[in-house]
Amino acid sequence: MEINCERLKENLIELSKIGYNEDDRGIYRTGFSDADMEARRWLQQKAKSAGYDTFMDGAGNVFFGRGDRTEPTVLMGSHIDTVPAGGMFDGALGVMAALEVMQTLDDNGCSHETPIWAVATAEEEGRFGGMFGAQAIAGKLNPDWVLSAHDADNVYLKDAMAAQGLEAMDALDAAWRPEQLKGYLELHIEQGPVLIQENLQIGVVDGISGVFKWIVHLKGKADHAGTAPMHMRSDAFMGLADFAHEIDRIIAENGTDKTRITVGKVELKPGNPHTVPGEAVFTIVGRDMEESVMEEVASACRKALSAIARRHRLMFEYEQTSWLGPKPCSSKVTDLIEKQVKKRGYSYLRMPSGAGHDTQFMSEITDAGLIFIPSVNGVSHAPDEWSHWHDVEAGTNILLDAVQALIKN
Amino acid sequence: MEINCERLKENLIELSKIGYNEDDRGIYRTGFSDADMEARRWLQQKAKSAGYDTFMDGAGNVFFGRGDRTEPTVLMGSHIDTVPAGGMFDGALGVMAALEVMQTLDDNGCSHETPIWAVATAEEEGRFGGMFGAQAIAGKLNPDWVLSAHDADNVYLKDAMAAQGLEAMDALDAAWRPEQLKGYLELHIEQGPVLIQENLQIGVVDGISGVFKWIVHLKGKADHAGTAPMHMRSDAFMGLADFAHEIDRIIAENGTDKTRITVGKVELKPGNPHTVPGEAVFTIVGRDMEESVMEEVASACRKALSAIARRHRLMFEYEQTSWLGPKPCSSKVTDLIEKQVKKRGYSYLRMPSGAGHDTQFMSEITDAGLIFIPSVNGVSHAPDEWSHWHDVEAGTNILLDAVQALIKN
Repeated sequence: MEINCERLKENLIELSKIGYNEDDRGIYRTGFSDADMEARRWLQQKAKSAGYDTFMDGAGNVFFGRGDRTEPTVLMGSHIDTVPAGGMFDGALGVMAALEVMQTLDDNGCSHETPIWAVATAEEEGRFGGMFGAQAIAGKLNPDWVLSAHDADNVYLKDAMAAQGLEAMDALDAAWRPEQLKGYLELHIEQGPVLIQENLQIGVVDGISGVFKWIVHLKGKADHAGTAPMHMRSDAFMGLADFAHEIDRIIAENGTDKTRITVGKVELKPGNPHTVPGEAVFTIVGRDMEESVMEEVASACRKALSAIARRHRLMFEYEQTSWLGPKPCSSKVTDLIEKQVKKRGYSYLRMPSGAGHDTQFMSEITDAGLIFIPSVNGVSHAPDEWSHWHDVEAGTNILLDAVQALIKN
Repeated sequence: MEINCERLKENLIELSKIGYNEDDRGIYRTGFSDADMEARRWLQQKAKSAGYDTFMDGAGNVFFGRGDRTEPTVLMGSHIDTVPAGGMFDGALGVMAALEVMQTLDDNGCSHETPIWAVATAEEEGRFGGMFGAQAIAGKLNPDWVLSAHDADNVYLKDAMAAQGLEAMDALDAAWRPEQLKGYLELHIEQGPVLIQENLQIGVVDGISGVFKWIVHLKGKADHAGTAPMHMRSDAFMGLADFAHEIDRIIAENGTDKTRITVGKVELKPGNPHTVPGEAVFTIVGRDMEESVMEEVASACRKALSAIARRHRLMFEYEQTSWLGPKPCSSKVTDLIEKQVKKRGYSYLRMPSGAGHDTQFMSEITDAGLIFIPSVNGVSHAPDEWSHWHDVEAGTNILLDAVQALIKN
């Protein structure tokens, strides 16, 4: 059985026109924006025309499918909101592929008793924190958070939802019980360079990597860059540079090939070209698939920074602003996906996801699996995000096969 | 002959009250501010009371002294404007020490035919670019610059001067002819840690170090910090860190003990903790006392950055926003000062000045010399700038001796 890639392509292109901005060629469908809600209504209409039942839950999640959802249901999905100036595949692929899978099963007269539904989750991209819809389904929301969440412009979630005719507190009623679910499957673009560079067709995701974030302060002494001899300085930037130089060693000694350490933001104070930096404030974001590895890596960062601070006569302080453990995908579903990929003869890699996905919350209530297809140049969250149609086709075929295998499971 | 340190101390403390801010205990006498002009009027009154002639030139420079300025004159001086929240010695010391030297000579009935004058230069600290008064005396101003100069708040120099009853273009008439000058002497705090750390009393400055400034761009690729494996990144920050690591080597191979290389300002783009930096924009400020060394050091920086850029798959661009060659002090005056220091038996160091001073413009029209005294903790441009009174006394005694030696020269 093969999905109809032409139909899928038409649907994806039609959806990509909602929120499209001619100037930067980006898509603007941030959570609960007018364009986002327009896309949700478009999707419901699309599903209805294709003969499926559809509804929107209290969190703004759009569901479509067929069958009794009180029985163990196979749920597919992803999100259709975007970052500002986003691309046409991030999220949208998984939703439209789910529709395509349902239509392919219908086209081929596949009868089955298992209810099959799909979901386009709400606010995955983070306008108000992210993965709002998936958290609602997984029953992870609480009233305090719902009422206090706001975006970077201080627009409250509850007000943004009210403006779209939604009552934020209804999101608390959107939770599914585990016994309603047989499993969850998500097809997504990789958003990284691994598959495309290694010339592979499919990524079988075995988990979402854990992540910690530190805000580090190295404090030395601001000196006149002309009058302070090199050996008499307490240059906070040189301490930071020394730490950067240790990153490879820290990973080689304590990490794995899945470890990432990134310094993404740096501020030097006073930040004057003619002044030796008296303070460096910077972020460290560390990731790995094993919590014990994360702990080793964090400990090694701490030791390295302490030693560097002593060497440069600096004061070292850090604040750990987040620590999220790794979320392994269900090995049952991961193995099941891998089996389908092998059957099709597609080239593939078992890999972690370095980015967060709805799957990580769905995995809290059911066996959840995530399938990646290659991202050209590893780009996402930008107008030039792209995936080749032959990869879209391969990925959707795997989703089709995995749904069928899950039904039989 | 000894200067009267009590009198000098009283004068310095009296001056320090003009523009003093109780909250941060800093002095606010930026060029052509009300406090700056009040200090200039105070100084003129002070000099007049002590029996000296005084006038303000078209640039706002205040002169005081005695004798026919068309004859070769011994000029002493420094500035009395400050940075915002400055200290009580930077500049003010050299001006009040000049008054003290004149009074000491008078007290001791020293008769001499050489005219002796002192100057409190205008806008040395850089509100409008810096060393405005010294440039005016050295004849280095041009009308275009005078009319277009403005401060960081876009207040024009000509308007700031007009508000104080001064006509900016009159600064062009403030130039002295070389034949009017026998020499220029400036006493200043070191503004660096060398003398205090090496426990020395006097710095005999043999020149102002040359300085170049680059704005460097390293451009890589902004990637998701979770999805981009370490070895597939083009991390602009890691390129910058590698350069920082080469600084010691570059100086060891190409520089001298007077070479300084400083990275004082860094901006990472997009500057998001969860994004691999796609671009690093940073400054490099390099200094040395020899122009050929500056060239070698700059060339080594360029080579290092090119190689690092290739290694990290980055694009390397830089803009050289300034290149000022070293300004050696007159060896005649420097040797003369050193001789006086030896006679007094003070401990001293011949050293470069890493900061700019009025002396560097004065040296364009006459034999100019600069004397340093220790700065406690190397601090200046801050309320906790301090120099010990016994060092103030020693430095002013050297200024006294040097003036007498210059008269006889």
